[in-house]
Amino acid sequence: MTKILPVIMCGGSGTRVWPESRETLPKQFIPLVGERSTFQTTMAMLADPAFEKPIVISNADYRFLIADQLRQIGAQADIVLEPSRRDSGPAVAVAAGLAARRAPDTVVVVLAADHVVRDRAGLVKLCKKAGEAAAEGYIVTLGVKPDSPATGYGYLRPGAPTHAGGEVLKLDAFVEKPDRETAQRYIEAGYFWNSGNFIFRADVMQAEIAHFEPAIFEAAEAAIDAAANDLGFCVLDAEAFARAPKKSIDYAVMEKTDKAALIPADIGWSDVGTWRAVWELSERDEAGNSVRGEGVVMDAKNVHVRSEDMLTTVVGVSDVIVVTTQDAVLVLNHEHGDRVKQLVDELKIQNRREAGAHKRIFRPWGYYQSIDEGQRYQVKRIVVKPGERLSLQKHFHRAEHWIVVRGTAEVGRDEEIHLVHENESIYLPIGCKHRLTNPGKIDLELIEVQTGSYLGEDDIVRFEDVYNRG
Amino acid sequence: MTKILPVIMCGGSGTRVWPESRETLPKQFIPLVGERSTFQTTMAMLADPAFEKPIVISNADYRFLIADQLRQIGAQADIVLEPSRRDSGPAVAVAAGLAARRAPDTVVVVLAADHVVRDRAGLVKLCKKAGEAAAEGYIVTLGVKPDSPATGYGYLRPGAPTHAGGEVLKLDAFVEKPDRETAQRYIEAGYFWNSGNFIFRADVMQAEIAHFEPAIFEAAEAAIDAAANDLGFCVLDAEAFARAPKKSIDYAVMEKTDKAALIPADIGWSDVGTWRAVWELSERDEAGNSVRGEGVVMDAKNVHVRSEDMLTTVVGVSDVIVVTTQDAVLVLNHEHGDRVKQLVDELKIQNRREAGAHKRIFRPWGYYQSIDEGQRYQVKRIVVKPGERLSLQKHFHRAEHWIVVRGTAEVGRDEEIHLVHENESIYLPIGCKHRLTNPGKIDLELIEVQTGSYLGEDDIVRFEDVYNRG
Repeated sequence: MTKILPVIMCGGSGTRVWPESRETLPKQFIPLVGERSTFQTTMAMLADPAFEKPIVISNADYRFLIADQLRQIGAQADIVLEPSRRDSGPAVAVAAGLAARRAPDTVVVVLAADHVVRDRAGLVKLCKKAGEAAAEGYIVTLGVKPDSPATGYGYLRPGAPTHAGGEVLKLDAFVEKPDRETAQRYIEAGYFWNSGNFIFRADVMQAEIAHFEPAIFEAAEAAIDAAANDLGFCVLDAEAFARAPKKSIDYAVMEKTDKAALIPADIGWSDVGTWRAVWELSERDEAGNSVRGEGVVMDAKNVHVRSEDMLTTVVGVSDVIVVTTQDAVLVLNHEHGDRVKQLVDELKIQNRREAGAHKRIFRPWGYYQSIDEGQRYQVKRIVVKPGERLSLQKHFHRAEHWIVVRGTAEVGRDEEIHLVHENESIYLPIGCKHRLTNPGKIDLELIEVQTGSYLGEDDIVRFEDVYNRG
Repeated sequence: MTKILPVIMCGGSGTRVWPESRETLPKQFIPLVGERSTFQTTMAMLADPAFEKPIVISNADYRFLIADQLRQIGAQADIVLEPSRRDSGPAVAVAAGLAARRAPDTVVVVLAADHVVRDRAGLVKLCKKAGEAAAEGYIVTLGVKPDSPATGYGYLRPGAPTHAGGEVLKLDAFVEKPDRETAQRYIEAGYFWNSGNFIFRADVMQAEIAHFEPAIFEAAEAAIDAAANDLGFCVLDAEAFARAPKKSIDYAVMEKTDKAALIPADIGWSDVGTWRAVWELSERDEAGNSVRGEGVVMDAKNVHVRSEDMLTTVVGVSDVIVVTTQDAVLVLNHEHGDRVKQLVDELKIQNRREAGAHKRIFRPWGYYQSIDEGQRYQVKRIVVKPGERLSLQKHFHRAEHWIVVRGTAEVGRDEEIHLVHENESIYLPIGCKHRLTNPGKIDLELIEVQTGSYLGEDDIVRFEDVYNRG
């Protein structure tokens, strides 16, 4: 049997599980359930010999995050970067285009990076079976047996098997998100949920996209042809890709094509689309309470406490999710999960940083995090990975004191180079050109105390940057 | 008319409004409602010429806090410190004893430091009226007209006026906290709540205590006679005071004496005994929501959000109090307010610092606060008030870097003295004797980075301390 090419869609911004998930570090990259991110568990599953080396398609902002998370689990992938967000239609067109360049009949499985599947071996088996139908020309979607009349999914009406006695069914209809009543009727009629994961032959998908959405097809092809290699990432051409209409693959192809099929998937699937779903996936005590991090629950049931840093207590309030992060708290009723997106929109209108950015800011070289702020000072924790180096820079309005608390720093300050060890400090006066490198084998951690009349991140002049940032 | 001597009871630990109120900075000292603490608003009210210079009775731990809060509002008081917590009976015995030493017929008003009174002028008037009855030998308690069958208060059954047409009523019975049904009957029968604020003549109260609780009387008298003056505070003798039985003044005297009277008080009184009471005292929008600090409430009513530092959001959960502090979050149903004390007890059993101590630790010289922690380092913000000085000290396990971010520090390091200005730093190696002073006219703020293998607060050897600490 020929191998399947997995393509992981990894570009979502995950606002529905704010405040843990934010644009700067969305859902697919955080350990929502268990110790690994859903991106990592998905990638780990693809180590099966049935699969070729995966392609990860994501937003350019996440390139170092992806590389980092792959490194952590020792996985390999080709990383393709979208210069703008154009929804899933153009992304699938790129996936098909890349696969077709290897061989037109390459079988592709497109998987979301932010779903949870309990039975991973089951999913691998399904991919293989669906792959056979895909090789015959079907576009197969994974159909999940509903356990409730959910209104957040599209539904699939199954038809006859593609082969007598086979598991893959022809798709009679692909229907949009229904209201509750309609959903109930769909369930009784044996419909499935659309999980948003697809298996198809590259040339078949290309032909369908070219037929129904020629503008998407042409934009995707041009974006691949003019793609650039940047530090090992494949960056799609920005101008070409921006020409692709913003459309989901459901609207673009699946609702229209007569090649659609489905394979029933009973694999403990969840798209982790709400906090309630996260609670359902978590270990709970007899009262239905689940505590992750430091938390105490009294006189309440069905409570999910998630606390990053500090003690979170709940007394007498049932059926709630309480999420405490370093800079934001959410108290949410189970039934209001779909309102979190609106909350985040509201926070954006109010121009609040917490809407999209975490307190800890990840950079190619590591991360920094503000730990204290005053009128004329700011204190940051800075962590630099072994071998990494920040840009050569200077500031017009602030001086900096660096105190190394772990590892060793190599500090360039104007014409000098200093090695600064644990429990040593160095002073960087206003206007000096400086550069920070971790020459060692362990993480470098330092405390930065900035003082000055203006402390904004934009007071920075970059002279050289190994990560090609502006 | 002779003046009234106010005695403010200021020693409570306020666990019912945890996590804002904790033993290290309890309820009476925090701005629960408005900008000032209830201790401060109480003290401000006593500026009326009807009152003598007040006496504040409190726990020894709170001496510098009290002095500080008085300074902030420009108020004067004599501060009397209890070396141990013995409940209100012994405290009132001390109040009476101190007043009797001025003149046996001194009229005393005992006020709680953690109550809120909307109509402060009304309270002053009531004190004057009650003072007249007290001068005649009555022990008058402020009786509050109930607005609900609360089970958290003792109730007062009023009798005939002490004088025909007078406002002060004889007290027929002093009854303990009832159940809800009984409370309802009490209200219908015209009972009042016992507010826990009393007016009496010193000699009358002394006689009653000596009669009903001679052990309390003798312990209080001995504790006053052997009191010491320490930096201007009157410290009761520890050994003598410890002999006083732990008993409330209600049990010790008020339930037994035939001298009790009450004056009906319609002055917008609250003992702020639960978070719900705080919510009721706060400004609310049409949905009954009240936000203090950074907060957003969606799809909910009767929510009270209190956030010290970070964004707190509530979606779809009504009738809750959400309190976010720097290190602890409480989500509480309105009806479970009386369970907070149990929650704090539970946290104590779990040996959690947050049960009793805030992240910001107040000291006579200012405060410090941990802002970051790692395995071998800790970062603190230290603020020293003008003219204040920390103890001369050394550490065996940690070195310290101090970076001044505001004001000027005078740093003694072994035999040297350094002036360290804003944006300058100094290094204190392990084992050096050092001392920090703020010689300036504005607050000194510095960032302390500690590194070492052990960073506990108990790694400190104190050589000299202007605040007489051990």
